[in-house]
Amino acid sequence: MENIKVVLWGLGSMGSGMARFLVDKKGIEIVGGIANRESKAGKDLGSLLELDRELGVEVTNNPEEAITGDVDVVLHATTSFLKDSFPQLKLIIEKKVNVISIAEELAYPSAEDEELTEKLNLLARENGVSVLGTGINPGFVLDLLIITLSGACATVDKIKASRVNDLSPFGPTVMKTQGVGTTVEEFNKGLKDGSIVGHIGFKQSIAMMADRLGLELDEIKQTREPIVSKTHRETPHVKVEPGMVAGCKHIAYGIKDGEEVITLEHPQQIQPEKEGTDTGDYIKIEGVPGIDMAIQPEIPGGIGTMATAINMIPQIVKAVPGMLSMKDLPVPSAMMGDVRKLVEDLV
Amino acid sequence: MENIKVVLWGLGSMGSGMARFLVDKKGIEIVGGIANRESKAGKDLGSLLELDRELGVEVTNNPEEAITGDVDVVLHATTSFLKDSFPQLKLIIEKKVNVISIAEELAYPSAEDEELTEKLNLLARENGVSVLGTGINPGFVLDLLIITLSGACATVDKIKASRVNDLSPFGPTVMKTQGVGTTVEEFNKGLKDGSIVGHIGFKQSIAMMADRLGLELDEIKQTREPIVSKTHRETPHVKVEPGMVAGCKHIAYGIKDGEEVITLEHPQQIQPEKEGTDTGDYIKIEGVPGIDMAIQPEIPGGIGTMATAINMIPQIVKAVPGMLSMKDLPVPSAMMGDVRKLVEDLV
Repeated sequence: MENIKVVLWGLGSMGSGMARFLVDKKGIEIVGGIANRESKAGKDLGSLLELDRELGVEVTNNPEEAITGDVDVVLHATTSFLKDSFPQLKLIIEKKVNVISIAEELAYPSAEDEELTEKLNLLARENGVSVLGTGINPGFVLDLLIITLSGACATVDKIKASRVNDLSPFGPTVMKTQGVGTTVEEFNKGLKDGSIVGHIGFKQSIAMMADRLGLELDEIKQTREPIVSKTHRETPHVKVEPGMVAGCKHIAYGIKDGEEVITLEHPQQIQPEKEGTDTGDYIKIEGVPGIDMAIQPEIPGGIGTMATAINMIPQIVKAVPGMLSMKDLPVPSAMMGDVRKLVEDLV
Repeated sequence: MENIKVVLWGLGSMGSGMARFLVDKKGIEIVGGIANRESKAGKDLGSLLELDRELGVEVTNNPEEAITGDVDVVLHATTSFLKDSFPQLKLIIEKKVNVISIAEELAYPSAEDEELTEKLNLLARENGVSVLGTGINPGFVLDLLIITLSGACATVDKIKASRVNDLSPFGPTVMKTQGVGTTVEEFNKGLKDGSIVGHIGFKQSIAMMADRLGLELDEIKQTREPIVSKTHRETPHVKVEPGMVAGCKHIAYGIKDGEEVITLEHPQQIQPEKEGTDTGDYIKIEGVPGIDMAIQPEIPGGIGTMATAINMIPQIVKAVPGMLSMKDLPVPSAMMGDVRKLVEDLV
């Protein structure tokens, strides 16, 4: 079997991070890199990634140039949204190349737009390729991992899970979209005008779980509240005084017959330790048996997303054509050997 | 789609437990029950299970009678061992029926006997059916769940996991095979003569993980030690005085270049709380990122095994023919809706 040929579309922190991990994987060959910024075009990917060697791959702004028919997988990291992804995915699919995207809404796109999802699905089938959205969340902690744990349950009554993380390492964009450093008034205004968004992906996670477990939910509800700080908190990018907003507490509910069958919480803030909050991923299943899981600290978002996406390469190469989700495929695993052997071993 | 037709082979505590969970599942129909004991034959399965209704299924001692061509899956719960299972599996497979077995060695049978596994694999393929071994351990906690968590890691250096449980609810057979209530001398003698065995399944779990992660291990080593009690411990079936053996500490190592890449511990004893030991399932992955997971208390062994096995019914109905393992298929999930819909939704 030949090396698996991968193109990176999007060379921001996520795309570059995935590329850095992939250059060390046996059986994988990066054959193209598509950057948004013009200043990156023409550079060797190795120097763009600050590796100690050139990779012989010239970064381009032109997807048509990078994605040729013998590419096996495009790793897509340009946006969070289905609508913005669509024309890019269409281009990839029509070149008859598989896609793994970290766009949050692609983790379970039918939760966002059934019609566009079916279009993608048909397009993928017509062209004989597979499309998958994944990442740490949605895609792993608050959906695939819960589904997996429920596999040891004969019955499930309720699911409550939370992902408590620390936004301190992130830059100004994340501070703005999570409302860090605002007043409560500014926060509420930001929610209304859409500049403060909280987490993207709850609808996807809840719909994926509900479909897999056969829970027939009536609706999905979401609430977003300011996390008002009692203490002084500070990062290189933002200062939060007591009474100001340290982050966004975003909660989503999957409701059936008026009851919250699924509750997912994702409070995102800077310096949660300042008020005694331990970060972690927590999953509690009420059922037979009950399961109470904790991962402390939480699986880090950035690396976790890069890892989950690259680790699905063997599965997507082997998968049946169509628009797929994490619940449909064998689970990812760290790729420590020859990735071609992993592909061959998948049934 | 018609109801999924299931036969239970083995109606001890595991087989009966699976049957009790299955009678409430929509889209599944129990059409046969095979018991080992003659005294059970001729009874209605419903009364054998102590349900409040008859099921219209007569328990038999004769597998030939129960397993007809229109059965979809046999749930096999008669033994822990591959060799003992083989003639029974052969009979099922030649009737062109899929099998899910809770025999520990079947979770990854090639770790026990490659030749016999290949025979099973060929037989299954010739007859167009799928064979899967599963259960809580091996099959879930110390293999599938670790594989899944490693899916969020870009690299894995070492895996250390332990399953700390309480044997107190179990009967005299388990006390004997784990050496509970023996002197240290008797324990060591029991290890030598094979009457004390510890956990069955470490080789399977380690080989499954190593193959999936692409770790090329040199060897698998195991140690079994007596857990010598410092306190008085007692259950309805056994008494342990200080200085006597409260259980068996079984450890397995997956070794590469002299280093323990995988370490799995499974100390099994009665009343671990008497010496301040909390029961739980613990997984620690050293890698990028590191992951530190705890499930407290542990997922219970009995119900967990029943649940894991029944929850793989949709996957095995849909799977490609052959001898499969948990790493090959989409993960199990609790079946709370119509199981036929789950089957249809699997890609």
